[in-house]
Amino acid sequence: MGAGSLTAVETVTAFLKRAHVGHQLVNFATEFMVPEALAAARELDACFKATGKLVGPLHGIPISVKEHVGFKGRICHSGYTAWIDNVAKEDALILRLLRQAGAVFHVRTNEPQSMMHIDCSNCIYGTTVNPHNRNLTPGGSSGGEGASIGLRCAALGIGTDIGGSVRVPAAFCGAYGLRTTALRNPYKGVLLAGTGQESIRCVISPLANSVRDINLFQQALLDKEPWGEETSLVPLPWKKIEALQPHQITIGVIWDDELIHPHPPVLRALEYAVAKLRRSGIKVVDFAPFDHQEGWEIISALYFPDAAKTQRDLLAQGGEPIAFLTEWAFSVARPEPISVAENWELNVRRDAYRDAYHQIMKDRGVDFILCPAYIGAAATLGSGQYFHYTSIWNILDQPCVTFPTGLKVDPKLDIVDEQYKPRSKADKREYDKYIPERFAGAPIALQIVGKHFQDEEIVAATELVSKIVQASIQS
Amino acid sequence: MGAGSLTAVETVTAFLKRAHVGHQLVNFATEFMVPEALAAARELDACFKATGKLVGPLHGIPISVKEHVGFKGRICHSGYTAWIDNVAKEDALILRLLRQAGAVFHVRTNEPQSMMHIDCSNCIYGTTVNPHNRNLTPGGSSGGEGASIGLRCAALGIGTDIGGSVRVPAAFCGAYGLRTTALRNPYKGVLLAGTGQESIRCVISPLANSVRDINLFQQALLDKEPWGEETSLVPLPWKKIEALQPHQITIGVIWDDELIHPHPPVLRALEYAVAKLRRSGIKVVDFAPFDHQEGWEIISALYFPDAAKTQRDLLAQGGEPIAFLTEWAFSVARPEPISVAENWELNVRRDAYRDAYHQIMKDRGVDFILCPAYIGAAATLGSGQYFHYTSIWNILDQPCVTFPTGLKVDPKLDIVDEQYKPRSKADKREYDKYIPERFAGAPIALQIVGKHFQDEEIVAATELVSKIVQASIQS
Repeated sequence: MGAGSLTAVETVTAFLKRAHVGHQLVNFATEFMVPEALAAARELDACFKATGKLVGPLHGIPISVKEHVGFKGRICHSGYTAWIDNVAKEDALILRLLRQAGAVFHVRTNEPQSMMHIDCSNCIYGTTVNPHNRNLTPGGSSGGEGASIGLRCAALGIGTDIGGSVRVPAAFCGAYGLRTTALRNPYKGVLLAGTGQESIRCVISPLANSVRDINLFQQALLDKEPWGEETSLVPLPWKKIEALQPHQITIGVIWDDELIHPHPPVLRALEYAVAKLRRSGIKVVDFAPFDHQEGWEIISALYFPDAAKTQRDLLAQGGEPIAFLTEWAFSVARPEPISVAENWELNVRRDAYRDAYHQIMKDRGVDFILCPAYIGAAATLGSGQYFHYTSIWNILDQPCVTFPTGLKVDPKLDIVDEQYKPRSKADKREYDKYIPERFAGAPIALQIVGKHFQDEEIVAATELVSKIVQASIQS
Repeated sequence: MGAGSLTAVETVTAFLKRAHVGHQLVNFATEFMVPEALAAARELDACFKATGKLVGPLHGIPISVKEHVGFKGRICHSGYTAWIDNVAKEDALILRLLRQAGAVFHVRTNEPQSMMHIDCSNCIYGTTVNPHNRNLTPGGSSGGEGASIGLRCAALGIGTDIGGSVRVPAAFCGAYGLRTTALRNPYKGVLLAGTGQESIRCVISPLANSVRDINLFQQALLDKEPWGEETSLVPLPWKKIEALQPHQITIGVIWDDELIHPHPPVLRALEYAVAKLRRSGIKVVDFAPFDHQEGWEIISALYFPDAAKTQRDLLAQGGEPIAFLTEWAFSVARPEPISVAENWELNVRRDAYRDAYHQIMKDRGVDFILCPAYIGAAATLGSGQYFHYTSIWNILDQPCVTFPTGLKVDPKLDIVDEQYKPRSKADKREYDKYIPERFAGAPIALQIVGKHFQDEEIVAATELVSKIVQASIQS
């Protein structure tokens, strides 16, 4: 568009058309905003024509947005039928800032009941399915975004993540998903049951089809200095950093979190990636996970400290049936509301765990961690229960990206391990879900993790690592 | 010491002697650490002799430390008799980092029961009094620090502040007290009842006898990158900024918080300061306070969300009588423990209030706010109850400094206002405390406040403003 070879109207129209077709395939949209998107595009074109300049780094870029991010004057229900009449009073801050950078919002996207599934189904819009295989879920909770980006219905997507909700759908749909450190991106104007809960913070962050796009999104957003309006944010500009070189970094590999075994395709992808990374000159070492059970005990108690009363009340008010995955999510909470003082104890445990994990990375000389994004390449519809390969980094508040390896599930290569021995009932339940044919052709993602507040570094590491892993000459 | 004209041993010895004399006058110390301080000084001298270099920017500087900041192997009781046998397992992070910068810790200092008085008395060490007038309190809760710095028993002091606990003692004792934005200075290793409470965060920060010293402390501390160990901290280095010039800034003046009237000495100091600041070329405008009652309602509910059960249990366990000011502090809490969900609502109100206050400062074009540090120059022993001239900036999480104006209470000038009309019972209660003769000669402080995370800017503003206000040619 800056070269004048494409107009914003052409670009937005193309993505709108693709989004309409895509929606018919996977049911990912909750609302199209055709007149508004085209009007914004016309305005951008007029501006470019008059000045010869782009409005900003996102001039004319069509972005899809998860439904619970509020648009002024539009319904915002966060997946609850009880909130079906709720109208957002103003645009979420992230929308205002990205619009100033030239972005165009053309479609809003689906999310699951309760926001706590790695799946994407609710009583209002039904079920979104995976663009690679309609028997699989696109993941969740930003499942509509996973489908939108996976199907190229938008150039960039905006999701939210408190346990993997950006990274899991990116992983399941063959896209890139960033979870920033908390308090970097502007969160104001997102509707979530239990707002004000700060022990484990939800972050808002992009899904994209390249690392370059992730970086562009973050740069454009933080150049607007959102902390000038949302004062709880940390005033850290998005640093421009040099591309990383292989000899500069050490990567620790978590093959298995020692709680639930990854499925064969994920282990194959890890082996494939590690071999290529080593060949490139990156120092790669095994990294024994540090007590992910402790991380789970803390985060599972913090997700619903009121024993999910807030959520149950809303579901009852809406008169909607409670989905299996909703009950499952609630079942991780303690059965009775915890007290404020118990919440403090969990905060102390959380900080001690964070400090200890960070110290261990330093002691072992590891800059980044490479690990599964999920136990498998994806989950079948309504079946995804274990998401601690992503939520571990939420409790640790470490920035991370899921990225496609370029590999796909191949039932001939990814055979069930006959030597497999269950560690626990939960491990067996999860391993039994691996029936190779069901996942044939599903893209296999991995996850790369950085240190607290080193968001720019994790994006740079993903640039380096994903290029090496995806390079067409296979190991 | 860098010039070789003084040794660390000479310096530390001099301050140790002064601290011992000072303690006999005002009872501010909880523990002297003579052998350890002298050993550290000898080591610094040996190092300087061998290398010709200072160990760091705080080489040989004697620093006093509030008692609840843990020293490895030493009792740490936080003012509670119940904790009289508690031994700290390691040095607080701030001590370790400052020691690396060359600091020597020679004396630990007193604090009040419950840590929530702007006074300084507990059942273990008794009452610390004000170095300017022993009928007055040195303030609190870092009252021992106020006395230590006010009496020049240390070159720098370390206090903590969740409602004014650094700034009030600095103000009452004629010193400078900084409250940083939360999560800048390392807090790990501070013992406080109710650890893990994050809705309103306690900060640890310096008291000093000059702005230069405050800046030195902050620079030395943050140059050590404490966020590498305490991961909850924000990784913001202490910026070196240019000295501010009068024409660059606009100061808004809060004369009165519209809840409780300041006493005549404080109003005289404000008038005096405003006249001098205007004459210097600084733009000074009146600033109507924005709903400080809202700030009070939020913070008073957040101080003791468990209805002070944590504190009451500790007091009962220690079998100690509950002081009037302790009951007073607890009385601001809601009578029943709030639920986790109610805590969330308060967090949301807090953030909305912060964002709105920040927006108002921007809308009015005000860079800094000048306001009282307290209703009066000081409080008589056991009588200080109203501390919302400082706690308002805790709930807003804005950085601020209290500084001496150079003025002292003069009963001839600071007469009771015959026109005074009480706004409320509380206002009358506080105004009636002003009996001019009781405060004769007490130093009068003011407070200057900056924007969230602009800690360096507020220190630079204090440098400019305090110099202008203290300049010997009076208006």
